[in-house]
Amino acid sequence: MTDTFCNPPVVAIVGTGNVATHLCNALGDQVTLHRVDPHSFDGMPDHADIVILSVKDNVIDQVAENIPKVFDIIAHTSGSVSIDILSKYGTDYGVFYPLQTFTKDVPLIYAEIPFLIEGNSQKTQETLFRLAKKISGDVRFADSASRKTLHLASVFACNFSNCLIGIADRILRGKDMDYQILLPLLRQTISKLQHVSPIEAQTGPAVRKDFLVINAHIKMLEQSGHDDWAEIYELITNQIISNEL
Amino acid sequence: MTDTFCNPPVVAIVGTGNVATHLCNALGDQVTLHRVDPHSFDGMPDHADIVILSVKDNVIDQVAENIPKVFDIIAHTSGSVSIDILSKYGTDYGVFYPLQTFTKDVPLIYAEIPFLIEGNSQKTQETLFRLAKKISGDVRFADSASRKTLHLASVFACNFSNCLIGIADRILRGKDMDYQILLPLLRQTISKLQHVSPIEAQTGPAVRKDFLVINAHIKMLEQSGHDDWAEIYELITNQIISNEL
Repeated sequence: MTDTFCNPPVVAIVGTGNVATHLCNALGDQVTLHRVDPHSFDGMPDHADIVILSVKDNVIDQVAENIPKVFDIIAHTSGSVSIDILSKYGTDYGVFYPLQTFTKDVPLIYAEIPFLIEGNSQKTQETLFRLAKKISGDVRFADSASRKTLHLASVFACNFSNCLIGIADRILRGKDMDYQILLPLLRQTISKLQHVSPIEAQTGPAVRKDFLVINAHIKMLEQSGHDDWAEIYELITNQIISNEL
Repeated sequence: MTDTFCNPPVVAIVGTGNVATHLCNALGDQVTLHRVDPHSFDGMPDHADIVILSVKDNVIDQVAENIPKVFDIIAHTSGSVSIDILSKYGTDYGVFYPLQTFTKDVPLIYAEIPFLIEGNSQKTQETLFRLAKKISGDVRFADSASRKTLHLASVFACNFSNCLIGIADRILRGKDMDYQILLPLLRQTISKLQHVSPIEAQTGPAVRKDFLVINAHIKMLEQSGHDDWAEIYELITNQIISNEL
């Protein structure tokens, strides 16, 4: 990886959350790094080449407004907020979006995290790209519309899958088991997708159109008093069946 | 692992599918193994200590009826079929259920696969338990009701998650991306669950009650002409929100 910054850039990461912490861990050795408090702006250097706002979506605007204007480039790390929110606060602005789920104390392989980069100019875009390349092997340009699409897709794939594993957990607790027994199966479910697409990888009663099992499952859910789970079961089963048509 | 069989047991695996193939791979070196055709019964030995029927749920009964009665124990490998289906066909019968998703040519770590064992007598149960122990470090007893519950849970956790990843894939294809970009995030989503429960691990707009993002996502889905995806989005989002109450 060629570093095309002349000197290690001065980077200020603004935020107290998990994303800010992980970005600091990932960048710490490779740039001159300042961690900045998003309320008091304690820690802000006299000058930063790049300021990264790693704060909740709904306060990006406010933090960008109040931050001392001592930077060349300002960027946010949100999947769902447009680049345009920063246009009032700098000449050079962009997005530095790591596609990951960040949890405190859960280690991450930073080199595998896809980074989605956007800049208001080619120069800004390239500078943010080079910064992301210091962390990850998978850095891509994506405009705000593509990034929003990716965010929506990751809600389905990750947030919603996690919710379904939570339902599985609660189903199992009724029989003195829990979701841990499913982890090898879950790892394999994901691992298969390196070889085959989700539609090819689909298994289970729905794709077999095994209505004996499907109806028994729906009955079990209804009898457990969980009509909401029965509704989710039917809807996703119908989705899998319709994919086959 | 102590082997308490006096001699390597003679095991006949009946079936042509992926489960049968993987069981043969996993057991091949450790027992005297015969692979048996479920139609002609070609390959059936003169005597088998254990016959394992690894065939589709809806033909277990028929294959068990027609198989030469030259075995001590007969077992099936289904998650959703009761042990009782085999009661007509042998004195000693049981269930030998590997909790995994088997795909041809996709390698598996057999030692991590949970096996759920049931037998009509303690002796049968223990014999099947010892056989499973030759493959896996995680072997448990489970009655038919528990096994059915586990099967239902794995449909939610694995089959349905795969369907949601398929929806994500189709969303991304509209922007010249595909599900592969989500794989590091998906691996981390599962990996986190070794440390924290699904309810603690939940991230995304629903758990943040970020209705700005939620409503924008639903609008994107509706505008794409996929009311079915919008319906799934709303239902699972409501599930996540209600978990928090």
